[in-house]
Amino acid sequence: MFNFDFYNPTHIIFGKDRLESIDKHVPANATVLITYGGGSAKRSGLIDKVKTVLGNRKVYEFGGIEPNPRYETLVKAVEIVRSEKIDFLLAVGGGSVIDGTKFITLASSYKGDSRDLLKYGFTPITSEIVGNVLPIGTVLTLPATGSEMNSGAVISYEHGKFAVMSPLTFPKFSILDPTITFTLPKIQVANGVIDAFVHTTEQYITYPVDVRVQDRIAEGILQTLIEIGETTVAEPENYDARANHVWSATLALNGVVGAGVPQDWAVHMIGHELTALFGIDHGQTLAIVLPALLDVRREQKRAKLLQYAERVWHIESDSEEEKIDLAIQKTREFFESLGVKTRLSQYGVGADKIPVVIEQLKAHGMTALSETQDLTLDISQKILERAL
Amino acid sequence: MFNFDFYNPTHIIFGKDRLESIDKHVPANATVLITYGGGSAKRSGLIDKVKTVLGNRKVYEFGGIEPNPRYETLVKAVEIVRSEKIDFLLAVGGGSVIDGTKFITLASSYKGDSRDLLKYGFTPITSEIVGNVLPIGTVLTLPATGSEMNSGAVISYEHGKFAVMSPLTFPKFSILDPTITFTLPKIQVANGVIDAFVHTTEQYITYPVDVRVQDRIAEGILQTLIEIGETTVAEPENYDARANHVWSATLALNGVVGAGVPQDWAVHMIGHELTALFGIDHGQTLAIVLPALLDVRREQKRAKLLQYAERVWHIESDSEEEKIDLAIQKTREFFESLGVKTRLSQYGVGADKIPVVIEQLKAHGMTALSETQDLTLDISQKILERAL
Repeated sequence: MFNFDFYNPTHIIFGKDRLESIDKHVPANATVLITYGGGSAKRSGLIDKVKTVLGNRKVYEFGGIEPNPRYETLVKAVEIVRSEKIDFLLAVGGGSVIDGTKFITLASSYKGDSRDLLKYGFTPITSEIVGNVLPIGTVLTLPATGSEMNSGAVISYEHGKFAVMSPLTFPKFSILDPTITFTLPKIQVANGVIDAFVHTTEQYITYPVDVRVQDRIAEGILQTLIEIGETTVAEPENYDARANHVWSATLALNGVVGAGVPQDWAVHMIGHELTALFGIDHGQTLAIVLPALLDVRREQKRAKLLQYAERVWHIESDSEEEKIDLAIQKTREFFESLGVKTRLSQYGVGADKIPVVIEQLKAHGMTALSETQDLTLDISQKILERAL
Repeated sequence: MFNFDFYNPTHIIFGKDRLESIDKHVPANATVLITYGGGSAKRSGLIDKVKTVLGNRKVYEFGGIEPNPRYETLVKAVEIVRSEKIDFLLAVGGGSVIDGTKFITLASSYKGDSRDLLKYGFTPITSEIVGNVLPIGTVLTLPATGSEMNSGAVISYEHGKFAVMSPLTFPKFSILDPTITFTLPKIQVANGVIDAFVHTTEQYITYPVDVRVQDRIAEGILQTLIEIGETTVAEPENYDARANHVWSATLALNGVVGAGVPQDWAVHMIGHELTALFGIDHGQTLAIVLPALLDVRREQKRAKLLQYAERVWHIESDSEEEKIDLAIQKTREFFESLGVKTRLSQYGVGADKIPVVIEQLKAHGMTALSETQDLTLDISQKILERAL
């Protein structure tokens, strides 16, 4: 087991009818900015319910944070935070809204050009850099990214997606009411299952370092997602399936699975370029890249791939290759069973576009990816070819 | 899945050579009280190492916190906290030292007779009751209770053991260096494995509420403890085994396993009386009571006992009774494989003493225990008879 730090102070408020808790967790005299996305939270009446709970507090709204939230959008919210002397940011949405709100709180306190904050990558942004930042609370509407219980965000600017990490951005609280997610479009639910699945595999299918509980937590999340995946997509009001989906997605990226283990994240890095270049949904890009990457990287990942085959898929065979082949095949079939296509060509991206992706990976410094930092651009190319 | 709140702000600092982190996490101008137990932390040189890291800070020491820490001992530390204007409590020890230190911080701030704090039981003690309390840090020397990453304590006073719960007592940080635990006596290591095991079963072998990840985390902890149990006892310097032991013990009672599930705790409540009356180690009392309780409560716990048999012990049989019998037998054999006896009579406690235990359970209000609050004194008696 590697040495590790684990710190996660977010207060999770999980279950039915928990919106009232907002009143307890937002200071009574706060001036609140509610942030949200494309408008479904507004149309469904959720924003109104939240405002009712906020009672006499002064409330502003900032809607229109898009999927893959853009810097250009978020800086408009920063202006409101400053001009209206906002004390508390309340994100009502999925990972994009929450990620965007994390950036808003950092940028609101930062004295310089806030594009600077996109340059830190996986280096945490501390209070020495931004000073004190405004607290965030969240009401989760989409189980997928885990952003509701971590300190990371991904922000889009020009043709890139940039990681922004800061311990200052852990939400103070997150309300996880599975019933709030019942009205989601099926494709978003499916993407959410895949996002949680791949967050887990990025921290699990690497190489063994004798971390027994973390491995089993990872396997438990993967098995749960496999069990409830089709149901949570097909039966949106099945509370038990959705509750397991929501909590799995949160646990997949709150630090528990990743404690003391090697981590890959190449699937995400390659996937980000596919979203930025071709507008393919984040979850879909992961469904495209993961099976191809596991196939290309089977030597580096052999021991954990075999463990994945045996423990998650219960595959029995005398042949290691067959076990690995079947595990990859079942992974692909699982994604497809959720209605998500797993081939680049099915999204209209042909072999001719691969050099453009490689170009972008190079431009963003993604030349030594994976848990062993030896996934070069050549290997990324092979993965993309395998994904066609 | 039940509604739940999850909140755990303790910063875990895990691994080899992490003591230096104390310097970062204790304020530079703090006056520190180091609390410890029977003296092994002193004799091993650990206290001196901690003091070296604390550097120029003013440091006081309070040793002699006994296993099952006593109110009468802890109030002496409260006097030092007040007279020396202590700012920070640093517990160097196992669950008893950490539990005791949690009580010290609450009692130091409380204005009235601090015995009042023993009366709250599972009702959290809030800042309305005690005001602001001093922060705690811990250096863990014994993997067992999970106290290093939760907000609970058990304090002994007269002939009782009293639960003290307060969100104010989460340690700010806990240093979990497995190498620090290498010098522990074998029996304490074995007791620690059993304590973690039974913390997990108390939150897992109840009744099903469709919590798939939590169940699998519980099963993962139990399987890990079964796999590394004999090794962590027999090979004290086996880092991998001990690291898995340490982290399993912390995860078993940090709230992750218990999120959204029914909880039992009858094994602990009955066990506490055996410790208070006969001085049997806490871990040993659990090894005595758990197999007997599972046997007596097999109807109430049937579904989860079968799941436990299948998933944790991989028992296959067409007979449900045989599955359950074998799971209980294997549990008992596991405890015995660690060198811990599982029968009351093996500790010199005969049938004649059972009425005394029942008397004490009655005196402490333990008349409706378990996840279904229907474990009466009559049933406790049956369990104790089965444990002879």
